[in-house]
Amino acid sequence: MSQNRNPGDPLNNAGITHDHHFASDNTSGICPEAWIALAEANTGRLPSYGADAWTQQACDLIRGVFEKPDAEVFFVFNGTSANSLALASLCQSYHSVICHDYAHVETDECGAPEFFSNGTKLLVGSGPRGKLTPEAVEKLIHKRTDIHYPKPRVLSLTQSTEWGTVYTVDEIRALTAITKRHGLHIHMDGARFANAASALEYRTGAAPADITWRAGVDVLCLGGTKNGMTTTEAVVFFDSQLAKEFDYRCKQAGQLASKMRFLSAQWVGMLKDGAWLRNAAHANLMTKRLAAALREIPGITPIIEPEANALFVDMPAPVAARLQQQGWHFYNFIGANGYRLMCSWDTREEDIDRFTQAVRAAAETQSPDPA
Amino acid sequence: MSQNRNPGDPLNNAGITHDHHFASDNTSGICPEAWIALAEANTGRLPSYGADAWTQQACDLIRGVFEKPDAEVFFVFNGTSANSLALASLCQSYHSVICHDYAHVETDECGAPEFFSNGTKLLVGSGPRGKLTPEAVEKLIHKRTDIHYPKPRVLSLTQSTEWGTVYTVDEIRALTAITKRHGLHIHMDGARFANAASALEYRTGAAPADITWRAGVDVLCLGGTKNGMTTTEAVVFFDSQLAKEFDYRCKQAGQLASKMRFLSAQWVGMLKDGAWLRNAAHANLMTKRLAAALREIPGITPIIEPEANALFVDMPAPVAARLQQQGWHFYNFIGANGYRLMCSWDTREEDIDRFTQAVRAAAETQSPDPA
Amino acid sequence: MSQNRNPGDPLNNAGITHDHHFASDNTSGICPEAWIALAEANTGRLPSYGADAWTQQACDLIRGVFEKPDAEVFFVFNGTSANSLALASLCQSYHSVICHDYAHVETDECGAPEFFSNGTKLLVGSGPRGKLTPEAVEKLIHKRTDIHYPKPRVLSLTQSTEWGTVYTVDEIRALTAITKRHGLHIHMDGARFANAASALEYRTGAAPADITWRAGVDVLCLGGTKNGMTTTEAVVFFDSQLAKEFDYRCKQAGQLASKMRFLSAQWVGMLKDGAWLRNAAHANLMTKRLAAALREIPGITPIIEPEANALFVDMPAPVAARLQQQGWHFYNFIGANGYRLMCSWDTREEDIDRFTQAVRAAAETQSPDPA
Amino acid sequence: MSQNRNPGDPLNNAGITHDHHFASDNTSGICPEAWIALAEANTGRLPSYGADAWTQQACDLIRGVFEKPDAEVFFVFNGTSANSLALASLCQSYHSVICHDYAHVETDECGAPEFFSNGTKLLVGSGPRGKLTPEAVEKLIHKRTDIHYPKPRVLSLTQSTEWGTVYTVDEIRALTAITKRHGLHIHMDGARFANAASALEYRTGAAPADITWRAGVDVLCLGGTKNGMTTTEAVVFFDSQLAKEFDYRCKQAGQLASKMRFLSAQWVGMLKDGAWLRNAAHANLMTKRLAAALREIPGITPIIEPEANALFVDMPAPVAARLQQQGWHFYNFIGANGYRLMCSWDTREEDIDRFTQAVRAAAETQSPDPA
Repeated sequence: MSQNRNPGDPLNNAGITHDHHFASDNTSGICPEAWIALAEANTGRLPSYGADAWTQQACDLIRGVFEKPDAEVFFVFNGTSANSLALASLCQSYHSVICHDYAHVETDECGAPEFFSNGTKLLVGSGPRGKLTPEAVEKLIHKRTDIHYPKPRVLSLTQSTEWGTVYTVDEIRALTAITKRHGLHIHMDGARFANAASALEYRTGAAPADITWRAGVDVLCLGGTKNGMTTTEAVVFFDSQLAKEFDYRCKQAGQLASKMRFLSAQWVGMLKDGAWLRNAAHANLMTKRLAAALREIPGITPIIEPEANALFVDMPAPVAARLQQQGWHFYNFIGANGYRLMCSWDTREEDIDRFTQAVRAAAETQSPDPA
Repeated sequence: MSQNRNPGDPLNNAGITHDHHFASDNTSGICPEAWIALAEANTGRLPSYGADAWTQQACDLIRGVFEKPDAEVFFVFNGTSANSLALASLCQSYHSVICHDYAHVETDECGAPEFFSNGTKLLVGSGPRGKLTPEAVEKLIHKRTDIHYPKPRVLSLTQSTEWGTVYTVDEIRALTAITKRHGLHIHMDGARFANAASALEYRTGAAPADITWRAGVDVLCLGGTKNGMTTTEAVVFFDSQLAKEFDYRCKQAGQLASKMRFLSAQWVGMLKDGAWLRNAAHANLMTKRLAAALREIPGITPIIEPEANALFVDMPAPVAARLQQQGWHFYNFIGANGYRLMCSWDTREEDIDRFTQAVRAAAETQSPDPA
Repeated sequence: MSQNRNPGDPLNNAGITHDHHFASDNTSGICPEAWIALAEANTGRLPSYGADAWTQQACDLIRGVFEKPDAEVFFVFNGTSANSLALASLCQSYHSVICHDYAHVETDECGAPEFFSNGTKLLVGSGPRGKLTPEAVEKLIHKRTDIHYPKPRVLSLTQSTEWGTVYTVDEIRALTAITKRHGLHIHMDGARFANAASALEYRTGAAPADITWRAGVDVLCLGGTKNGMTTTEAVVFFDSQLAKEFDYRCKQAGQLASKMRFLSAQWVGMLKDGAWLRNAAHANLMTKRLAAALREIPGITPIIEPEANALFVDMPAPVAARLQQQGWHFYNFIGANGYRLMCSWDTREEDIDRFTQAVRAAAETQSPDPA
Repeated sequence: MSQNRNPGDPLNNAGITHDHHFASDNTSGICPEAWIALAEANTGRLPSYGADAWTQQACDLIRGVFEKPDAEVFFVFNGTSANSLALASLCQSYHSVICHDYAHVETDECGAPEFFSNGTKLLVGSGPRGKLTPEAVEKLIHKRTDIHYPKPRVLSLTQSTEWGTVYTVDEIRALTAITKRHGLHIHMDGARFANAASALEYRTGAAPADITWRAGVDVLCLGGTKNGMTTTEAVVFFDSQLAKEFDYRCKQAGQLASKMRFLSAQWVGMLKDGAWLRNAAHANLMTKRLAAALREIPGITPIIEPEANALFVDMPAPVAARLQQQGWHFYNFIGANGYRLMCSWDTREEDIDRFTQAVRAAAETQSPDPA
C-alpha cells in the first residue's frame, strides 16, 4: 500500500478537505509562530546536521525553559522515533519498560520500541484515568526477578496521558521515588507535554522543571507536532550522562536531519515568546468549553473530566455515526459508545459551537420520543 | 552531545551564517516551488498519516514521471531511512547487499542498513569513477556460497554516484542482467537521482523510466532533500509485490509522518511542472561551469569529468586551507589533495566567479615563485 | 553473575546433589537410549555442520515419525532458540504472534522471540487450562487492523501446554481453521510434544501427523531436552517452502553446531525404537500416580486433572515450605498456594511414594489440631 | 535445506565415515577426559541453568587457570555465539569492532556479530601471517571520527590466529596499549586459545594470565569444541564489571542451557589435570611433524611456519584434487594452490605418515616427467 491508500484509517477520503476535525491534534497544520520561523530559516546556506545557529538557539531555549543549562537536546522527526530512541538508549534488549496499558508506546507504535531496542519488552500496568499507580508499578517491578524474564529498567510515563489527564507533581514524585529505589530510569512521553505543562502551571503554578527533572524524570520526549509544528520532536536528557553517544544512535536510526534548521527553527519560533504554552492553553480551554457544551446535551456524558486537550464522551453509536456521515471526524476510543474528541491550537470557538449544535441535533433525532 | 555540538564536523561554527558553501547540496534551503506548495498545504485540517489529497497527488505525480501507474510510493524523512528501509524490505538478516566501496550506505550511514535489517552485511566492490563493474558484481556474487557467509540478495547502485558520475542505461542493464540471473533484487540510491536523470535526458534522451524499472531497477529511493526540499525522500517500488507491508515497516521504524502533507506537498510543487529537473539541470550546469573555470587555474586539476553536481579536484592542501580560512566550505574527499565541491539548485554564477577568483588568488599565493 | 551464581533460582545450592526433584523435567540427566547413541557417535572423525550420516538418519527418522518425507528438519541447541528462530522465520519485525498468556515464549524466554525477530510483539490471549480458545484467537486477530499496531502473523500453540493439558485434534483443527482463513501461520512449541503425543495416542489413537501437519500445524519445535536428551531440539517444517534459508538463519543466530553428530545421534537413539514415546508415557503415568496419591491427602487438591507430565496442586504454603526445607524441589506456580510438580523419564515409583509420605506428614504437622 | 543437506560443504557425503580428515579440528569427537566427565555428570537430578556443583567447579577451575578469582565465566553452546555475545555486550549498535580481514567473526559467522549486536560493523585491517599490526589498528581507529560512521569500540584478536600463528605477549601488549588509550575494549576469540597457550608456554613460559588479562585482554572466548569437547565454549570476563547482566543476554539469545552440567562437566574433566593443554600440545606437535614431513616433498611448500595446529601449504591443485578423491579431507584456503591442514587432539602419527605417503605419491604422479 502506498501512503495514500491506508485502509485502516476511517478518515481515508483522500481528495476531500476536512474542516470538521476532532480526530486528532495532528490533523492541524503549522501554527503562525512556527511558520514564520521556518520562513526566516529558509535563507541562504547553513551547515547541515545541526551545526547551525538555529539549532544552537533552539537547544538553548529548551535548556532555558527547563532551567537546566546542561541538558542535552536532540531533534528528531516524530514521536515514534523520539520515544523509541530514548527508551533504546536507556535499555538493553533483555530489559523491560513499565508503562500504562493505554500508553501510546504500547498501543500505537506498531512495535517501534521493541524494534529500536532489538527486543525490549513492554510490561503494562493499569491505573484509573490513564495514570499508573505506585502500586501497579511496584507490582510490575517485583513480578519477576529471575533471568527468564526481561528485567525492568525504565518507567515510561505519558504526560498528558492518553486519557487526557495530567500527572500532578506529587504523583510523578511518588512514582519516581519507587523506580529510583530500584534503579530504573524515568522516561516521559511528552507528545502533549505542553498541554500538561500549561494545565499544571494554571492549576498549581508548577514550572516545566518541577514536573520533569526536579520530580525525577531523566529523559523527556517533548512533542512539537501536536503543539503546532511539523515533523519534529525534541529528546531532552536532563542527565547529560545518559545522552552519551545519542547523536550516533539518532544518525544510525535515520533520525538525523541534514537540513536540521527546518526542525530547530520551528522550536525557536515556538519557545522564544511562549507560543508553545499559548497553543496548549488554547487547546485545553477549547476542550473544557467543548465538555461544558456537550454535558448539556441529553444522552451525551463526559467519561472523565478533561485536564488537557482530549475529551472522552459516552455517546450513542448511532449519534456518532450520524455526525461522522455529516463529515465530523473523531474516533471511537473505548467500548461501543466511548469517543475521543481532540482539540488543538487551531480549534475555534465556532467549531465547537457548530459541533455542539450538530451533536444536539443528532441526539434529538436519535431519541425522538422516549415514550 | 546535543545536536548543536557536533565535534566531527569541521563546519561546526554555530552562530555564523555561511554563504560560501560548496560543502554539500544539503546546506541549501528549500526552493521556491517546494516552499510555495508547503504554504498552500498549510491550510485547515487534513487527515493524517498520508490519507490526504496532497499525498495522493504526489504519489500520482511520481507514478506519472516514471510512467508506472502501479508503482507504490512512500514518503519518509531522509535518505538514511529511505535506503535502509528499502534494503531491509528486500533482505533477511543473513543476507548481504552488494555495493560500491564508496557507496553512501557503506561510508556515511553509521551502520543504518545493518541496523534496520538486523545484521545484513554490505559487500563492497570496486570500480572506476564510483561505478560498480559487472566483473566486480559477478565476483562478489560468487565469492562465497556456503552458509558461513551472508548470502547476496540485493545489488545497490547509487545514481548519480558518490563520484559525481552517472550510470548509463547500458551500464545499468549490464549490471541488472547479472543480478537478475542470480535472483538478486536491484535497489537504487537516488539521493541525487534528479541530477542523473537530468544529465541522461540531456545526453541521451533517456526518460526516468528508462534508467530505472525498464533497466531492471526494483526499488528507487528518490531524493528530495538535495533536490531542494526539506526532510523528505520517496521510496518508489516499481514492483508492487515488493512493497507488501512496507507501510508497517515505515511505521515501526519511525518513518511515518503524522502530518504527511508537509512532506508530500513539496513533491507536488516540485513535480507538477518539472522543477525537480530544472533544479538538477541548474546544479549540473553550475558544476560544469565550476570545472571549466578551475581547470584554467595552474595547480588545480579536476580528478574526473563531472557528470552531475559534484566536482572533484586535486588542489594543494595549503590552497584548500587558505580558502577554508576565508570561509569557503568544502570537504577533503580522498587522499591529501582531493577535494569535493558540490553545486546545488541555489548555486549562483556569481558564487562560482567569486570562488574561482579566490582559488586563483590562493593558488598564486601558494606558489609565488617556483624558482 | 557467572553461570553458577544465579540469584533468581531457589534451587541455587550449588555443591549439593539433589535427588528429590519435582522442579522440572530438565533436572533429569540423559536417558540410556540417548547416551548409548552418543557413545556410538563418538567414534572417529566425521564431517561437521550436519553433513554426517547420524544427522541424515535423525532427519529421516523424524520424517518417518511424522509420515512427511519432505519435511525439513533442523537441530538446534535448546527450546529458546528453536521457538524463537521458528517464529522469526515466519514473521517480519512489524508482525505479531498470538499465544496464550501462560505460553513459555511469553513468560520464560526473557524476550527471546522479540530479540530474534527484531521486535515482533506477542499478543496474549486467555483460555482455561492453559489452552487458547477459538474466541480468544479470533478476538486478537480482529483487535487491531491498522498500521499503528503489529499485524498478527502467527498463532503459537504449546503442546502439551504449560498447564499440563493437551490440545485434542479437534481443538487444534478449530484453531488452525481460523488462522488459515486469515493467513496466519501455525507454530507449535513442542518442548513436551512427546508427552502430548503419548497422551493423545493412548486416549484417541491419534498419530503425531494427526496432531501436527494434518491438523494444520506449519512448524513444530520438537523437544529433546525434557524428553531425556541433552541440549537439543528439532525444528520441523512440514511445509518445506517455509524452511527456505532456515539453515542460514540458524548459522547467523549461533545455532549451528559444528559437531552436529552429538545432537543428532541422540535423536537416532530416541526415535529408532520408540524411546521418545516410552519416556513420555512413563512421565505421564508417574504424574497420574502422583495425582492419585496426593488427592488422598487432606488439604492437598489437584487444581486440574493432569493430562501430560505436570501436576498442579493447591497446597498450604507452610506445607510446601516444610517440604522444601526437607530438600524436595518444586516451584510455586500460581497464587499463594498453587504448586507445580513435574515428572520425568527418570521419576521412579519410589520417588512418588516417598514424596507422598512426606507430604502427608507435612500436612498433618500443619494442622495438628483443628480445635 | 535440512541440516543434512548442506550444498555448500564439499564434505557433504553423508553416510560415509571419514577417517582421513585434516579438514578441521571440529571433525574430531569428544576426547576421553571430557567423555568421562560427561558420564560422571549423568547421575541423578541436578539443578538446571547452571545452579549445580559441576558448573561451580568448572568456573572455579577456569578462574584458577587464569589466576583471576573474580573472573566471571559463562558457558555457551558454540563459538559463533560466544564471540557474538561477548562483542554485543561490549558494543552498542552504532559502534564498530576492529578485526583482521581473516578473522573468523568477519569471514565465517554469516553476519552473527552484526545480528547479535543489532548492526555493529566490523572494520577489517590487515597484517602479515593473520596478525593485526599496531599500525593497522591505529589507522582504523583514526579513519573516521564523525557521527556518520560507526565508532570503534572493540578490538578483536584471534589467538591462535586463522593463519595458525600466535600473538606473542609483546605483540598483544603493543595492541592493547593503543586501544586502551582510545577507550576500546579488547576481545579475544580463543576458539583455539589452548593451542596458543600451549605454544607460548612452551616457547616463552608465558602463563594463560600473561597472554590475556595481564596483557590487557578484557574478555576471552575460550574454545572447548576444537579442544576436544562438544558444543561448549566459555566466555571469560576478566573485568567483572563488563559481565554485568551477561546472564540475561545469554538467556535471551538462546544460549543458556537448561542441563548446564553437560557443558560444564566437560570443562571440569579437561581442566582439572591439564588435559586441555595436553590436547593442544599434541595437536601443535602433530602439525609441526606434518610440516616437516611435507617439506621434504618436492612441489609442496609450507606457506608460513606453523605455530599452533594449522598448517598452510602450497600444493599443486591437481595433487590436492587427487588426494581429495582418495578420501583425504582438507580445504582450499587461499588462491588456487593454498591449502589448510588442521591437526587435532586425535591426530595420530600414523595419520600423518599415511597422509605424507599419499601426498608424495600424488605429487610424483603429478609430475612424472618434466621433459
